[in-house]
Amino acid sequence: MMNPLSPDPDFDSRIQTSFARQGLMNTIGARLTKVIPGEVNIEILFRESLTQQHGFVHAGIVTAIVDNACGYAANSLMPPDCEVLTVEYKVNFLSPATGEKFLAIGKAVKPGNTLTVCAGEVWAHDKGGKKLIAVMQATMMAVKG
Amino acid sequence: MMNPLSPDPDFDSRIQTSFARQGLMNTIGARLTKVIPGEVNIEILFRESLTQQHGFVHAGIVTAIVDNACGYAANSLMPPDCEVLTVEYKVNFLSPATGEKFLAIGKAVKPGNTLTVCAGEVWAHDKGGKKLIAVMQATMMAVKG
Amino acid sequence: MMNPLSPDPDFDSRIQTSFARQGLMNTIGARLTKVIPGEVNIEILFRESLTQQHGFVHAGIVTAIVDNACGYAANSLMPPDCEVLTVEYKVNFLSPATGEKFLAIGKAVKPGNTLTVCAGEVWAHDKGGKKLIAVMQATMMAVKG
Amino acid sequence: MMNPLSPDPDFDSRIQTSFARQGLMNTIGARLTKVIPGEVNIEILFRESLTQQHGFVHAGIVTAIVDNACGYAANSLMPPDCEVLTVEYKVNFLSPATGEKFLAIGKAVKPGNTLTVCAGEVWAHDKGGKKLIAVMQATMMAVKG
Repeated sequence: MMNPLSPDPDFDSRIQTSFARQGLMNTIGARLTKVIPGEVNIEILFRESLTQQHGFVHAGIVTAIVDNACGYAANSLMPPDCEVLTVEYKVNFLSPATGEKFLAIGKAVKPGNTLTVCAGEVWAHDKGGKKLIAVMQATMMAVKG
Repeated sequence: MMNPLSPDPDFDSRIQTSFARQGLMNTIGARLTKVIPGEVNIEILFRESLTQQHGFVHAGIVTAIVDNACGYAANSLMPPDCEVLTVEYKVNFLSPATGEKFLAIGKAVKPGNTLTVCAGEVWAHDKGGKKLIAVMQATMMAVKG
Repeated sequence: MMNPLSPDPDFDSRIQTSFARQGLMNTIGARLTKVIPGEVNIEILFRESLTQQHGFVHAGIVTAIVDNACGYAANSLMPPDCEVLTVEYKVNFLSPATGEKFLAIGKAVKPGNTLTVCAGEVWAHDKGGKKLIAVMQATMMAVKG
Repeated sequence: MMNPLSPDPDFDSRIQTSFARQGLMNTIGARLTKVIPGEVNIEILFRESLTQQHGFVHAGIVTAIVDNACGYAANSLMPPDCEVLTVEYKVNFLSPATGEKFLAIGKAVKPGNTLTVCAGEVWAHDKGGKKLIAVMQATMMAVKG
């Protein structure tokens, strides 16, 4: 059944395919864990190979997963022949990226024909619970694929 | 001879040591190519393992190197016992990250005791020349190491 | 009764007094409409004197009210002797600022001793309803008053 | 003589006309002091009516003039039938906005058919000299007028 909120009945497979083509997502072991119209979630597990000088996950990796989560959230609301490019983003880092698992949640706040504004969060999970470690505000652009 | 602009005569070795501790910089093959008071440059070469879905270098990796260039530019002007954390950054992507080499240039625009505002650029180089692919505006924070 | 979430029992009057000292808020006819710990709302009515070239309210005025809403939201969670300064903000404009009334909502996302990260929204209201016209992500800093 | 860098020989008068239509620029006494292809400057003088609670010029007004400087810098490189809208901006505040005169400088960093990325600065001037008080990184969008 066609998803009522996406103009593309195959948005999920389109996003899965695009994600699988990303060398970086493979390198860092990222997984798509939720793909619904207007929201995408991406997870990584802690790895030493992704750290900055204090042993936290590097801001650039935190940014990479939430950028993708936001970009695909925007993409999920675009027509079949559209891909998405990141115009710009802004990230605030709220707490050190320590933990076992990091979950990026991207949502389309204002979809548009050309530009879509998105909001993202990254949560660090460990045995003790979870904490919000970063928030993103981003602009994504639809481009004909 | 002590560098006249940094309060730390050993800022260069301090930054080299910190950079070497970053697992991610090793993973992506990044090199520190310039470390002077108030400016740091970092380079990477193109790798398939760092790409997004179109085969360009991923925005998160572009961000990671210019975040580090900006952070260490701020750190170069801090006292010996200080480390630096990224408070927030904003990146605009100007052109696709295609090329052989990517050079991130970070500069301290307004150093401060607690917060330092930085500006960053990323240039893509290939045989045909170079182009500016991203600009960053960032806030870095000094923390006692 | 002391508000349980603010370290200052007089946060409301402190914020009202500060707001009243702002020449700009008087110039644009802004009113504080909600002051609770961690959230502040500010309203203005449409005026020709606040417009840009298309007759919409100027982005700088939209920004001014949501900056204040975020700043006072941060301030509401600070000790009695603290004032707040804006370190930086980022605003995305989602729709033209047309309407009769504009409501800025500022919330503290991550309060801290020195820095507080805030999220803001601006809603345009008219007879037909309301729409979200701008979103802000901001960093506020506590300073001893 | 047609300006060699702008696709519109009348960019200057187009921008002057647009600026004159802005109610806010009249309210705050702003003046266009430089209009060349890719760069626009705007000045205001200190007024009590534009202040925040410490008597500094309000961040929203600092933002308004540098937003306009950036927007018109983008607009100066657009065809005759184009107007400009602000997609988003990010501002870092480096020093309190104290002084007699405030000069906003906006430049187009990366002009494009749809989106133009701009960089802005605001300088405070008084008898003792000048200081950089704010930096902006912004995205502007061309719209058919």
